[in-house]
Amino acid sequence: MPDANTTALAKALCGAMGEIHRRGWCDGTGGNFSCVLEADPIRLLMAPSGVHKGSVAPIDLIQVNREGHVVLGNGKASAETALHLEIVKTCGAGAVLHTHSQAGTLLSQWACRQGRLELSGLEMLKGLDGIKTHDCSVDVPVLPNNQNLSELSAQARPLLRDAPHGLLIAGHGLYAWGRNLGSAMRHLEILEFLLEQRWRQLLLESIQAK
Amino acid sequence: MPDANTTALAKALCGAMGEIHRRGWCDGTGGNFSCVLEADPIRLLMAPSGVHKGSVAPIDLIQVNREGHVVLGNGKASAETALHLEIVKTCGAGAVLHTHSQAGTLLSQWACRQGRLELSGLEMLKGLDGIKTHDCSVDVPVLPNNQNLSELSAQARPLLRDAPHGLLIAGHGLYAWGRNLGSAMRHLEILEFLLEQRWRQLLLESIQAK
Amino acid sequence: MPDANTTALAKALCGAMGEIHRRGWCDGTGGNFSCVLEADPIRLLMAPSGVHKGSVAPIDLIQVNREGHVVLGNGKASAETALHLEIVKTCGAGAVLHTHSQAGTLLSQWACRQGRLELSGLEMLKGLDGIKTHDCSVDVPVLPNNQNLSELSAQARPLLRDAPHGLLIAGHGLYAWGRNLGSAMRHLEILEFLLEQRWRQLLLESIQAK
Amino acid sequence: MPDANTTALAKALCGAMGEIHRRGWCDGTGGNFSCVLEADPIRLLMAPSGVHKGSVAPIDLIQVNREGHVVLGNGKASAETALHLEIVKTCGAGAVLHTHSQAGTLLSQWACRQGRLELSGLEMLKGLDGIKTHDCSVDVPVLPNNQNLSELSAQARPLLRDAPHGLLIAGHGLYAWGRNLGSAMRHLEILEFLLEQRWRQLLLESIQAK
Repeated sequence: MPDANTTALAKALCGAMGEIHRRGWCDGTGGNFSCVLEADPIRLLMAPSGVHKGSVAPIDLIQVNREGHVVLGNGKASAETALHLEIVKTCGAGAVLHTHSQAGTLLSQWACRQGRLELSGLEMLKGLDGIKTHDCSVDVPVLPNNQNLSELSAQARPLLRDAPHGLLIAGHGLYAWGRNLGSAMRHLEILEFLLEQRWRQLLLESIQAK
Repeated sequence: MPDANTTALAKALCGAMGEIHRRGWCDGTGGNFSCVLEADPIRLLMAPSGVHKGSVAPIDLIQVNREGHVVLGNGKASAETALHLEIVKTCGAGAVLHTHSQAGTLLSQWACRQGRLELSGLEMLKGLDGIKTHDCSVDVPVLPNNQNLSELSAQARPLLRDAPHGLLIAGHGLYAWGRNLGSAMRHLEILEFLLEQRWRQLLLESIQAK
Repeated sequence: MPDANTTALAKALCGAMGEIHRRGWCDGTGGNFSCVLEADPIRLLMAPSGVHKGSVAPIDLIQVNREGHVVLGNGKASAETALHLEIVKTCGAGAVLHTHSQAGTLLSQWACRQGRLELSGLEMLKGLDGIKTHDCSVDVPVLPNNQNLSELSAQARPLLRDAPHGLLIAGHGLYAWGRNLGSAMRHLEILEFLLEQRWRQLLLESIQAK
Repeated sequence: MPDANTTALAKALCGAMGEIHRRGWCDGTGGNFSCVLEADPIRLLMAPSGVHKGSVAPIDLIQVNREGHVVLGNGKASAETALHLEIVKTCGAGAVLHTHSQAGTLLSQWACRQGRLELSGLEMLKGLDGIKTHDCSVDVPVLPNNQNLSELSAQARPLLRDAPHGLLIAGHGLYAWGRNLGSAMRHLEILEFLLEQRWRQLLLESIQAK
């Protein structure tokens, strides 16, 4: 029988996934979402691979160890678990939220050649931990998509520490994280807002250039 | 009195229609939605023609045989039932979801002359059964609209087997299907996402071309 | 005490207004919504003027006679009641739904000089009563905005019979109607869909013209 | 124990924040929202700083005095409380709603150099107190963003009396207010609608200019 902490975290994670689906950020079986249940040794609570994240019940969640093996629950762990674990280990994250939004998919492809997407000058940046003023600029790293998740994780590793709690995979989507689920959700909402805003800025710049 | 399986499927189908309406994919009396109740002989559970799909109750559903005749329930079967049956017979689908979304309506007209809409290079493609990498391309067939559904079904037939669980009718909308309701809903969400993304790509390409 | 029919209609009208607000079609105190309670002499059930239509309770509705005077309930009748009554009298409508959507506001201004907005070639047109094929064209009449509602109603009168269950007021919004509340809601969803689609078509045409 | 008035107002404010979040106008920890509990001396009921406004419970609200000090409840008052208080004192507002929407963020930057954003010719303007016709124009003042809220409040002060119940901070968002919570919510919905509409007008003007 799960302890009270696991039960509460499972319920909160399922609530977050439902809200993320409502907003159209994890259609189909897109996206994946994890929380750290235990820090040492690492144990992740997460949705299994290949399910619709908007309608996962707490009982459907799986538990995964630091090697990415399922240690409790039914279902497979997504190959993307490797990147979740990399972010937890490198950044000390307590939760990792990976979405497939319209703006994240579009702008990650657009910015892939530069390897980064710059976001600057907006009050919403202050919703990212460590940022105290709108008058700044952050670079979200952008990696090419890769079905080999251990390669992708190795490419991500050196970029994670300086990343603004977010990383883009081109034509794929956003990883956002934080010290706990609430903080990861805040960073996710902020980064998705800023990606959508960047898209509108591009349209506006194109009008003004005429 | 309906058996437990029929009751459960009817409830799931009505839930799916409510969610599809919430997203604006079946306004007015647009769209139609069916599940296979029995495979041999085919019996479909579906919404009757001319009703608002977002507020159909399980008791309002009709049952239709392989000739498209109503065998249980009140109401008429939509003329589009012919195409639902064609997809069930040709692809072995267990559910067919037909939507009228903004992007589906727009891009089906745009791509009609080519007879196909290409979707490529995106992680979301992996949500379609049989696709294992983002690094691929699928062609959604596009047929001209036609009020003669037996003609339309005959035109669709040779295209269905190679179709990526989806078919567009120009200025009309999308048919998505899967081996069961959950799988059809996944394919629908994936294809609608990709259609909306294709629309945004067109806008972005137009900006970059300047 | 209201009779069962009035109670049911009041509840249905409030449900419709809540849904219309959820979709962003009656922000602020925008829009107004009425149902015919009695046909002869005409008695309308409607929301009072100056309230937020998304949160009106059945008990807050007013009843209005054929001269537009409040005969039951608290609150004033909107000046726009004159146009609701004109539509009921001229078209035999059982319900009139007046919205302020983004696309309706934008395209009504854009099309005002032509006096009409053409919608054509789309399957969704078949959701309008009397239309049997996508291969047709309808003209939604567009009138200049006018704070004098008796003038506006007089201008609308000759246009109503041929209107496709909808009328646009420039920079203001859409009136949609039907023989009862369900039919009016269907026409509203169809026309709002087609307006949003027309907007996307304009953007796409502008891309293609390059 | 809070009195009935405080309890009711707290519940209404939390309901408003939930609705504002649903619409995507206060993602992350963006935005802030206050109601006047007592007018003399001023006591504000508001959400604490740094929390997710969409899921605040009545018990989480704080009370703040006219100097911006927390006098009841747990949590810090946002630095932006200074501008809330300025609006209450200068305009006699009973509620102040500060959002971070896509259109508000985009157009406030676009219009910053002019110091104002003009909105004109639309029926929706009549949802703003004191406006009786669509045939008018209002200027929403736009100030540069500034992390020094006492400076920002001092810059806002001379602009507030003539402002149409709304003020924009560039790259930041909208402040909307009214004599009570309902009136502030109405002005917020109207101004957000008009900002989104202005954005669409800019896109349409760019198409027509071709």
